[in-house]
Amino acid sequence: MTFDELTLGQTASFAKTITEADILLFCAVSGDTNPVHIDAEAAKASMFGERIAHGMLSASLISTVLGTRLPGPGTIYLSQTLKFRAPVKIGQTVTATAEVTALDPAKKRATLATRCTVDGKVVLEGEAGVMLPG
Amino acid sequence: MTFDELTLGQTASFAKTITEADILLFCAVSGDTNPVHIDAEAAKASMFGERIAHGMLSASLISTVLGTRLPGPGTIYLSQTLKFRAPVKIGQTVTATAEVTALDPAKKRATLATRCTVDGKVVLEGEAGVMLPG
Amino acid sequence: MTFDELTLGQTASFAKTITEADILLFCAVSGDTNPVHIDAEAAKASMFGERIAHGMLSASLISTVLGTRLPGPGTIYLSQTLKFRAPVKIGQTVTATAEVTALDPAKKRATLATRCTVDGKVVLEGEAGVMLPG
Amino acid sequence: MTFDELTLGQTASFAKTITEADILLFCAVSGDTNPVHIDAEAAKASMFGERIAHGMLSASLISTVLGTRLPGPGTIYLSQTLKFRAPVKIGQTVTATAEVTALDPAKKRATLATRCTVDGKVVLEGEAGVMLPG
Repeated sequence: MTFDELTLGQTASFAKTITEADILLFCAVSGDTNPVHIDAEAAKASMFGERIAHGMLSASLISTVLGTRLPGPGTIYLSQTLKFRAPVKIGQTVTATAEVTALDPAKKRATLATRCTVDGKVVLEGEAGVMLPG
Repeated sequence: MTFDELTLGQTASFAKTITEADILLFCAVSGDTNPVHIDAEAAKASMFGERIAHGMLSASLISTVLGTRLPGPGTIYLSQTLKFRAPVKIGQTVTATAEVTALDPAKKRATLATRCTVDGKVVLEGEAGVMLPG
Repeated sequence: MTFDELTLGQTASFAKTITEADILLFCAVSGDTNPVHIDAEAAKASMFGERIAHGMLSASLISTVLGTRLPGPGTIYLSQTLKFRAPVKIGQTVTATAEVTALDPAKKRATLATRCTVDGKVVLEGEAGVMLPG
Repeated sequence: MTFDELTLGQTASFAKTITEADILLFCAVSGDTNPVHIDAEAAKASMFGERIAHGMLSASLISTVLGTRLPGPGTIYLSQTLKFRAPVKIGQTVTATAEVTALDPAKKRATLATRCTVDGKVVLEGEAGVMLPG
């Protein structure tokens, strides 16, 4: 998708069910072995009551929407803000959605409102800034 | 670490060499199969000249510092801003660093300046907001 | 195994339980992030009613029989036909079986009937062509 | 994509560079631990001269084209023939391509010529049969 194909209000989504294996592999790539992700006993005793996914795992689904769907391959990812609203538990399906909210034709830049939801409830929200090839 | 153990200027880091396997597994957990990450031929023809890691992979290393070192387990991750400054290539070692820049004793919240560097050059920077157990 | 050790009717099998992690890793290596494999909500709404394994994951078990058991290491895999008969769901155990059905001594080639079953029901069937070292 | 959107001659591709990690993970999901894939010394002494990817790994890229691009999600995979023409080595980029070659409106079925190439050379070819939602 080129800059000129973007319009305000365009949206795209990507959804994925978070499995134990996702959490294990996210530990592998991130090195984040916080007990709340991998120690069911410690997680049970925590405020979450069970193991939860890494917040950045949900954030990565936003990146997937931007890099593969809207705007898609060729997009330069400039910035992202993230507000973690609620934990994601094993077996939950996270839907990441991006919506074009601002366009800067001079700089070929776009702003997208981004959020992740589980059963319609927002677990992560923020804003992405991207640049597109001319 | 409890809130009272935090002081302004405290820092901690986590470093990891980014391998082809990291990128492959990040594709698995994120679903992001953008050619620039997995197709060496397409990546060579892109503005990057070779395959690059997902920006959120570097961001996940910041999460690792916060969740395992400073402040460490028990930290509630509230927010993160990310500005992607440069791509990370296979074989490069990314060092994520967090530094305490503000403390709010009333709310048990801390702000940390966060950045990822490769050979001393900033590839990602931003700010994290966390809350600690009382 | 050399060509001369093969006889018509010989069989060998390999069985594996398909887990969520298998599907996740198959997404990584194949790049196939079709929602029916990774999005439990979309899969529930599909004709399958739940997430299913990639058909090629079952097919890969046939390759395992040929390459490790019958005829085993040294085998040159020439061809395979695949008819997908039924989906495979998470937790099901797939048994791949190969049976020698034809031998061509002049060319050192063998034909094997191949099938995958779950609880005795055929989910995948076809025919393999292989060549063995002289 | 629905059946009515398909036309003869339509094509789509998916490309992926095959890494050591891909081969490792393919071993994990398939159980195929044939030395030619994972033992560099044995592979060096084999007719291939070095480790090669599983043939079914290339085949899985065809499945990715069918399931995510042409025809895409919703496609029912009925059959596939595979002729393995040449080995794929670590670091090579495999491009899988599918082209619509026959359409059966009465049954909502399509036939696609499928092939995998490395540097323009065919390493795998065959034919896929799919059915689309009505």
